[in-house]
Amino acid sequence: MRLRNKKWARPLIESNPKYIVTEPEKYRGKWQERFAQKAPLYIEVGMGKGRFITEMAAAHPDKNFIGIEIQTAAAGIALKKQVAQKLPNLQLILANGAGLTTFFADNEVAGIYLNFSDPWPKKKQAKRRLTYKSFLAQYEQVMAPTGHLEFKTDNMGLFEFSLQSLNNYGMKFDGIWLDLHNSPEAEGNIMTEYEEKFSQLGQPIYKLTAHFPKADQLSAQAD
Amino acid sequence: MRLRNKKWARPLIESNPKYIVTEPEKYRGKWQERFAQKAPLYIEVGMGKGRFITEMAAAHPDKNFIGIEIQTAAAGIALKKQVAQKLPNLQLILANGAGLTTFFADNEVAGIYLNFSDPWPKKKQAKRRLTYKSFLAQYEQVMAPTGHLEFKTDNMGLFEFSLQSLNNYGMKFDGIWLDLHNSPEAEGNIMTEYEEKFSQLGQPIYKLTAHFPKADQLSAQAD
Repeated sequence: MRLRNKKWARPLIESNPKYIVTEPEKYRGKWQERFAQKAPLYIEVGMGKGRFITEMAAAHPDKNFIGIEIQTAAAGIALKKQVAQKLPNLQLILANGAGLTTFFADNEVAGIYLNFSDPWPKKKQAKRRLTYKSFLAQYEQVMAPTGHLEFKTDNMGLFEFSLQSLNNYGMKFDGIWLDLHNSPEAEGNIMTEYEEKFSQLGQPIYKLTAHFPKADQLSAQAD
Repeated sequence: MRLRNKKWARPLIESNPKYIVTEPEKYRGKWQERFAQKAPLYIEVGMGKGRFITEMAAAHPDKNFIGIEIQTAAAGIALKKQVAQKLPNLQLILANGAGLTTFFADNEVAGIYLNFSDPWPKKKQAKRRLTYKSFLAQYEQVMAPTGHLEFKTDNMGLFEFSLQSLNNYGMKFDGIWLDLHNSPEAEGNIMTEYEEKFSQLGQPIYKLTAHFPKADQLSAQAD
């Protein structure tokens, strides 16, 4: 969802290099140095206004988190939250997620979140969807073999596409929910701004978690 | 769904050996002999009252069809339809689908339909679901590598389970629909008795089609 431009966003970002990075390539392979302590690193591609990643970081002080957002206005709103909370295990990136393998070294990431990504509903836009195979190839490269991808959306067409895309790529599902908020897993679910708004309208929220086959191959070798 | 016993069903079945088989092991590898002409063979595991398989057979005279049902009463109702229509490309089986590999030779089947299968909702009943891995192994054995499995249900829990079970088994999805009747593919969809009733109540109908990886391996070798 595109936000209206916020005049204050760019200056706020420029004056807070401690919390937000605009040249993420510089930290490739060295992200742990930007956190108070070393810990497994979880990233959200498309954090929007940052509620999810901020609440995750607050709830899991033993893990490090990075929220990535391409829109300056949205990243600015997320940054405001972090300027107020100063979470030592949260960093933000203002950049296009399509450059993921230039931001992170191979296996640098422990897990990846995609929440309510742009559905790009037209067929010819399929390549822009964050669950398109070219993005999956990037996730596979930057994520450790034991890592999981977690994906939530309220968009039925995007969820249908994503189930098929991940499956055809060779990923294995760990869990699938076709109405997350009415399932036992709803408890403990950290919501995005968007998720709260749309689930209140009675829309089902879809979720999946999946991993790349690398993990199964490694555990088979260990047997 | 279990039907009340029908006293007429057993005698009707016994007097129509031309249309319905109660010892399917006898025809293993020889099913084509029971049809008016040789043609690719499609089976429905759990045909219920037989509306779907009967309409499919009527709509596709260039293909052969077999409907399998474990319940005598339901098989009797399906048989009544066939006794009335005498479709030359339809045969019925009264037997437990769990014996599939004893009914069909390897690769004898061109495609498999599962429609509104019993959800067996309790966790300890998972092995009875027709999309459990032991059933998938049987489908893989009897179906030609180019064949597809088509599965429809209105049961959300069973669909979640089935997506994960097929994926974890290594099957590849060709299509996924989370609200079939409101999608462009609704046209041409042949409904079961159950499907018509439940979709009229506004329940979404879920559908998937999938194939076993054998097909991809064969086409990769051919490249």
